[in-house]
Amino acid sequence: MDIKSIRQPIKQEMLLFRQAFSDALKTDNPLLANIHESLLECTGKLLRPTITLLSAKLCGLVNEKTVNSALSLELLHNASLMHDDVVDETSERRGKPSINARWNNKTAVLSGDYMLSISLLHAMKTESLKILGVISKIGSLLADGELLQLANTQKSGLSEEDYFNVIRGKTAVLFAAGAEVGAISVDADEKQTEAMRRYGENLGICFQLRDDIFDYYEDIKIGKPTQNDIRGGKVTLPLIYALQNTEGAKKIAISNWINNNDFSAENIKTIVRFVHENGGIRYAEKQTEIYKNKAIEAISGFADNDVKKSLIKCAAFAAGRDI
Amino acid sequence: MDIKSIRQPIKQEMLLFRQAFSDALKTDNPLLANIHESLLECTGKLLRPTITLLSAKLCGLVNEKTVNSALSLELLHNASLMHDDVVDETSERRGKPSINARWNNKTAVLSGDYMLSISLLHAMKTESLKILGVISKIGSLLADGELLQLANTQKSGLSEEDYFNVIRGKTAVLFAAGAEVGAISVDADEKQTEAMRRYGENLGICFQLRDDIFDYYEDIKIGKPTQNDIRGGKVTLPLIYALQNTEGAKKIAISNWINNNDFSAENIKTIVRFVHENGGIRYAEKQTEIYKNKAIEAISGFADNDVKKSLIKCAAFAAGRDI
Repeated sequence: MDIKSIRQPIKQEMLLFRQAFSDALKTDNPLLANIHESLLECTGKLLRPTITLLSAKLCGLVNEKTVNSALSLELLHNASLMHDDVVDETSERRGKPSINARWNNKTAVLSGDYMLSISLLHAMKTESLKILGVISKIGSLLADGELLQLANTQKSGLSEEDYFNVIRGKTAVLFAAGAEVGAISVDADEKQTEAMRRYGENLGICFQLRDDIFDYYEDIKIGKPTQNDIRGGKVTLPLIYALQNTEGAKKIAISNWINNNDFSAENIKTIVRFVHENGGIRYAEKQTEIYKNKAIEAISGFADNDVKKSLIKCAAFAAGRDI
Repeated sequence: MDIKSIRQPIKQEMLLFRQAFSDALKTDNPLLANIHESLLECTGKLLRPTITLLSAKLCGLVNEKTVNSALSLELLHNASLMHDDVVDETSERRGKPSINARWNNKTAVLSGDYMLSISLLHAMKTESLKILGVISKIGSLLADGELLQLANTQKSGLSEEDYFNVIRGKTAVLFAAGAEVGAISVDADEKQTEAMRRYGENLGICFQLRDDIFDYYEDIKIGKPTQNDIRGGKVTLPLIYALQNTEGAKKIAISNWINNNDFSAENIKTIVRFVHENGGIRYAEKQTEIYKNKAIEAISGFADNDVKKSLIKCAAFAAGRDI
């Protein structure tokens, strides 16, 4: 399954979105122009705007408000990646050097701030207090989620609940808001809007679970550097499950490494093996399947059509995508 | 002249503001709670909310929209300081360690993002698209100003025009918006609103000029570390003037130090002396006076009363304050 086939029913609308995206990134500042150009060369899969547009089309007719909402969220998402890369000291993004790596932290902080600010300007263009309300809430939820994650690093005793709180905050809120504003932009009723929000939230959880599972595979299989989470002291579901369902010397050793930030190449190898051998991957995959079904269940009340089929495929894509 | 006497006509309104400020910073996150507590212990002079409240009171009756607008801007201002301190590698803020110094860059970036997001939530509370429009525009202007400043560092050939473009962007827009939203919040007409905006903009320019002049005095006189600008390669008006109005070996040497980031303690001493000896301070002080008068002129159409008197004193305060 590929993203192109998912986007079949919103082909025209995606063109509008892409045009608006590239217009939004026009700037006289030569440094920003450089940064924006490299962003447009490599936009990623644009899964978030895809969901906003599909959600709007399921509930009504895509219009300018839909495109501006989708754009605002995509810009917010990119701003948050720029700041995340500073926070996580990530040197690569979408197969290219990250902004902090190619320029420096200053540039990444400021250009992230700039991107946040144009995100807000596009939210304003909708002139809808309802849409503005949803988008302005995500900002604080995202920041909260990231701060919670920062507080949770190097903690071997993290619970499943802690984990789900973080991924709801840092990932799922953006997908939830994307599906929600899509519905609001076409004046969907409250029941439909809430259904779309739930669809987005559950899909977002799937998406993050999948990401966290990938981190326990080899680079070569995933096509990008892996083991970043554990190297940064981030304890995610596969490891939480494995730690909580075993006893013995290895568990104690690994807990100590986590709590003391002791991640030699050898230790990381041991942790990865430990997770695979103790059912961590299997368990996280099972959870992904559960949330995928929750996402699909959320939109079960809508009539069957091509758009709904795409939303179902999209949930399966988030849960099972290769990279 | 002190800020307390300026605030005399808005004593009650300031209490409402302070309460709202402290409420806005309540959080369950222990790290943020810590950061917010130290912010509330040392809020600075609260000059920006003072201007918003005075502006509103000059045009009408201060109300909840006024307080929320003032709060949104004060939060935005603090968020931008947090990120500036990362960008400028500043280790002290208001006589205390900055967040990046006391914690680290990660924490400063994320808690700045969080503060931005609650700024936006309070702007939303006004439910006024006009106020939201003004506030959302500042975000991009501020980011633009900072990026322009970053692009302009280590440039000995900077012009006065370049300098004023930067300070309009990074400082004056916030004061302009503060005075403007104050007027909008009490439904002032367009002429009054524009007058207040101009008042704020010119006062903001004074304020930044004063700050840039201080940087050429000794620490002991100012009560905080000075020579930060020049150490960071920022060429401000006193130095621009001195460089443009002299010729000779010293000018060439200083230009080379700036362009090559060669700021030994000895070189900095030489630059400071050069600025004083070549009229840089005198010229910048004259400009401050001019912009102060422009600010006062902007509100000349309003009837004379205590609030207007305070706004006039406030412009003089921004232009002449001790620290």
